[in-house]
Amino acid sequence: MVQAALHSPFLHPSRLLRRFLRRPLPSAMRPLTLDSLNPQLQQVQYAVRGELAIKAELYREQLKSGAAHSLPFEKVISSNIGNPQQKGLDQPPITFTRQIAALSEWPALADLAPGVFPEDVVARAKELHSEIGSIGAYSHSQGVLFIRKNVAKFISERDGHLADPDDIFLTAGASAGVSLLINMLITDPTAGILIPIPQYPLYTAALAQHHGRGISYMLDESSGWSTSVEAISDALANARAEGTSPKALVVINPGNPTGALLTAETMAALVRLCEEHSLVLLADEVYQNNLHRAAEHPFTSFKKVVRDLRSPVPLVSFHSISKGVSGECGRRGGYLELTNIAPEVRALIYKLVSVGLCPPLSGQIGVDSMVRPPKAGEPSYALWKQETDAIHAALAERTRVMARRLNALPGVSCVESPGALYLFPKIEIPAKAAAAARAAGKEPDAFYALALLDETGICVVPGSGFGQKAGEWHYRLTCLCPGVEDYVGKLERFHLGFIAKHA
Amino acid sequence: MVQAALHSPFLHPSRLLRRFLRRPLPSAMRPLTLDSLNPQLQQVQYAVRGELAIKAELYREQLKSGAAHSLPFEKVISSNIGNPQQKGLDQPPITFTRQIAALSEWPALADLAPGVFPEDVVARAKELHSEIGSIGAYSHSQGVLFIRKNVAKFISERDGHLADPDDIFLTAGASAGVSLLINMLITDPTAGILIPIPQYPLYTAALAQHHGRGISYMLDESSGWSTSVEAISDALANARAEGTSPKALVVINPGNPTGALLTAETMAALVRLCEEHSLVLLADEVYQNNLHRAAEHPFTSFKKVVRDLRSPVPLVSFHSISKGVSGECGRRGGYLELTNIAPEVRALIYKLVSVGLCPPLSGQIGVDSMVRPPKAGEPSYALWKQETDAIHAALAERTRVMARRLNALPGVSCVESPGALYLFPKIEIPAKAAAAARAAGKEPDAFYALALLDETGICVVPGSGFGQKAGEWHYRLTCLCPGVEDYVGKLERFHLGFIAKHA
Repeated sequence: MVQAALHSPFLHPSRLLRRFLRRPLPSAMRPLTLDSLNPQLQQVQYAVRGELAIKAELYREQLKSGAAHSLPFEKVISSNIGNPQQKGLDQPPITFTRQIAALSEWPALADLAPGVFPEDVVARAKELHSEIGSIGAYSHSQGVLFIRKNVAKFISERDGHLADPDDIFLTAGASAGVSLLINMLITDPTAGILIPIPQYPLYTAALAQHHGRGISYMLDESSGWSTSVEAISDALANARAEGTSPKALVVINPGNPTGALLTAETMAALVRLCEEHSLVLLADEVYQNNLHRAAEHPFTSFKKVVRDLRSPVPLVSFHSISKGVSGECGRRGGYLELTNIAPEVRALIYKLVSVGLCPPLSGQIGVDSMVRPPKAGEPSYALWKQETDAIHAALAERTRVMARRLNALPGVSCVESPGALYLFPKIEIPAKAAAAARAAGKEPDAFYALALLDETGICVVPGSGFGQKAGEWHYRLTCLCPGVEDYVGKLERFHLGFIAKHA
Repeated sequence: MVQAALHSPFLHPSRLLRRFLRRPLPSAMRPLTLDSLNPQLQQVQYAVRGELAIKAELYREQLKSGAAHSLPFEKVISSNIGNPQQKGLDQPPITFTRQIAALSEWPALADLAPGVFPEDVVARAKELHSEIGSIGAYSHSQGVLFIRKNVAKFISERDGHLADPDDIFLTAGASAGVSLLINMLITDPTAGILIPIPQYPLYTAALAQHHGRGISYMLDESSGWSTSVEAISDALANARAEGTSPKALVVINPGNPTGALLTAETMAALVRLCEEHSLVLLADEVYQNNLHRAAEHPFTSFKKVVRDLRSPVPLVSFHSISKGVSGECGRRGGYLELTNIAPEVRALIYKLVSVGLCPPLSGQIGVDSMVRPPKAGEPSYALWKQETDAIHAALAERTRVMARRLNALPGVSCVESPGALYLFPKIEIPAKAAAAARAAGKEPDAFYALALLDETGICVVPGSGFGQKAGEWHYRLTCLCPGVEDYVGKLERFHLGFIAKHA
């Protein structure tokens, strides 16, 4: 440090500088405070990484430093976020994906370590390198054309309708695309966007950031968190009566936090509703590969429904490499597809994403691996099949076991999610606990979740972070934790203790 | 495709669906047009990836498809963007950085390919893995704490003043951080931010996106694009007279597009000016490691100046792995450091970045490699030294040769940049050419740059994309192209032909 400073002109200040240094601080200097910042941003709430997640992080640091003998748990379990590969959960990455990524980082490895990489991986990495060049270079702002062509092929095969690479934008995860679209659709402070309740709080956060209004429509817990066209029509009518201009409908399918899957009839009816009300349809389909009973109820995309119906509804569909069996959250990869969107609107999207230069190449090649997994007969297929089958099976099994045991607890009921990564149990909070919560300035579900964290090290997200019916309380937890017996045991003991304490 | 569709409920539509399908399209359905989108976003301009870059991309695709016999060039040279590793430029990545990245992607490689990776690389990758876990997991939204500690150490050693890891946010390149700060500082549509002219157009783009005003201050080309405190004071007075509330001062050092380096005296005076006017100082220092005469004029950070002066000015400093000798644009990595920023403002920044979950891990480990290069005596040092010396030398030499030869052309003058990756020559446009440009609805410098692209395949950015004095014309080109003789030869022949044609 001292050595570096010796070379600096500032240790031997010039005369001008000495004059400055002697001058008193100007009394007019105002510090930067929250009051002097964009007030809209202070409305942003994102519970998934909110108070509880921050406290969990502090506990984790405390445990790591060894200075935590007084904590009543030995590890922090982050059930607050769908982050399959995080420490403690350690869902292994797909070997095929990582082998291609490693060769993309250092192409010489194929020759330096002969025989280490399967032949199909070497061929794939060479093909990507010849198309992309270095992954250290900016790509086209819309994403590498070759990869967008592969995405288009994946969509075409999934839906039975052609997709156009020019309508696909690779993104830094689905979130980046959602924020951009919300920013574009909010024309003025009366503009609103229909969002399901409960919802993934990215939507309310992006609306707050871009000064738009959320128009809530309730999902129906009693019918497995189903979506009702009538509920949306009512919400639209109420919004218009209050002077809100509805711009778009957000649908999350499979649902987050609910895991619910839309029926074909509901999807068609939602498309027709968007036609009638000139709404853009924003389809968050990032859990399309997380279906626990895929044989009974396969995924159907809104792209397919819109095309089957020959509908003119403008549709933006989002997908991601963070979920599914890929679980590659840290790469920040995903894509959005535009359907029935005019070229001049697409050009505006291009211009806006170009200011951020390009999505991370590591995410882009992750998208390529997701949409082009190994095929039967290829050297990498057997291991890929074994790894992905294991991930699907573990998630389905944990979801089933956790839902069953949560439902057996007094005052807890829980829809057994057919998809996504979560459960969203409803909890009855004893009146005494609710009063204690209010006294502490907390929502009752946040109070419950905080006590759960403090006693067990398990971090979940209170239902109030997603929205819920007035007077009801929930929390969201992921079904990603290994050791489900031990884990659910902790949840059960805590719940029974909490009920007893506040009886 | 057909097989996928056969499994879908939509090939055999239900009664409800058939009813929908028969129904005529609702006449009320309005298509999504530019008029129905956020008008503010349509003001965004980003010339670096604008009309010329799009046309260059089309030429490149045309050449690749072999359908371009009529084009008067054999390759497109993208001198419009500081993208060192792009195809055609092919600045090699630093081997050390990529070896660590490859091991991070597939940690088993260290054992599967014994002896392929140097010992220090293996140790480093193991350390990163034990701190981070899988790079496929979301990290802390502020970035991995271990990497932030390494950044803080790098800054402390550079400046001789301690840096705090809690004040550091890892970002997806510098651009993401700049956009966020501008969003935060624009409290209402009268808020303004001082930006240099010429400037890197990220600043005007972010201001347009977030509905803020740019307050331009002119750099002085006649003194090597120097920054004048008087010019800024005048701009402030004019802005206030027009009802604009100045919030922050943007300084790009070394400059983009100018390459200019601030003197110690100017830096101190700018800090005092921020004190007097209660301005936040936004210091874009992404070219801090691109100094062609570093021995004569080393880089000094604003962090150091602020601390040396014991100034209370709120400062946000930006750095990136995209430039320097790293050139890892595609990873999207960088950091921002907060100085004199209150904890509650830092908490707001945390909340806002948490909505986007985390910066790409590939960029985060790129930052780690940048701030912790191999040390003398370590196995990777010799190769690292050789590679980085070669990059510095090539850039300095190309900048020198290009500036000399451009200055020898009639009607061209060019400050020989001491830093960054660019030259920003001034060109006299003949009156006839200016008239032809206006007739074609183009700015004269855009007309010149378009002709350059059409005739030579060289893509540059017109000065109007960065801002310039009224009646003057410039363009920005990078100094990254190999084969400088051939390349400058093309520029010279084009310029002489253009002058002759429009004489």
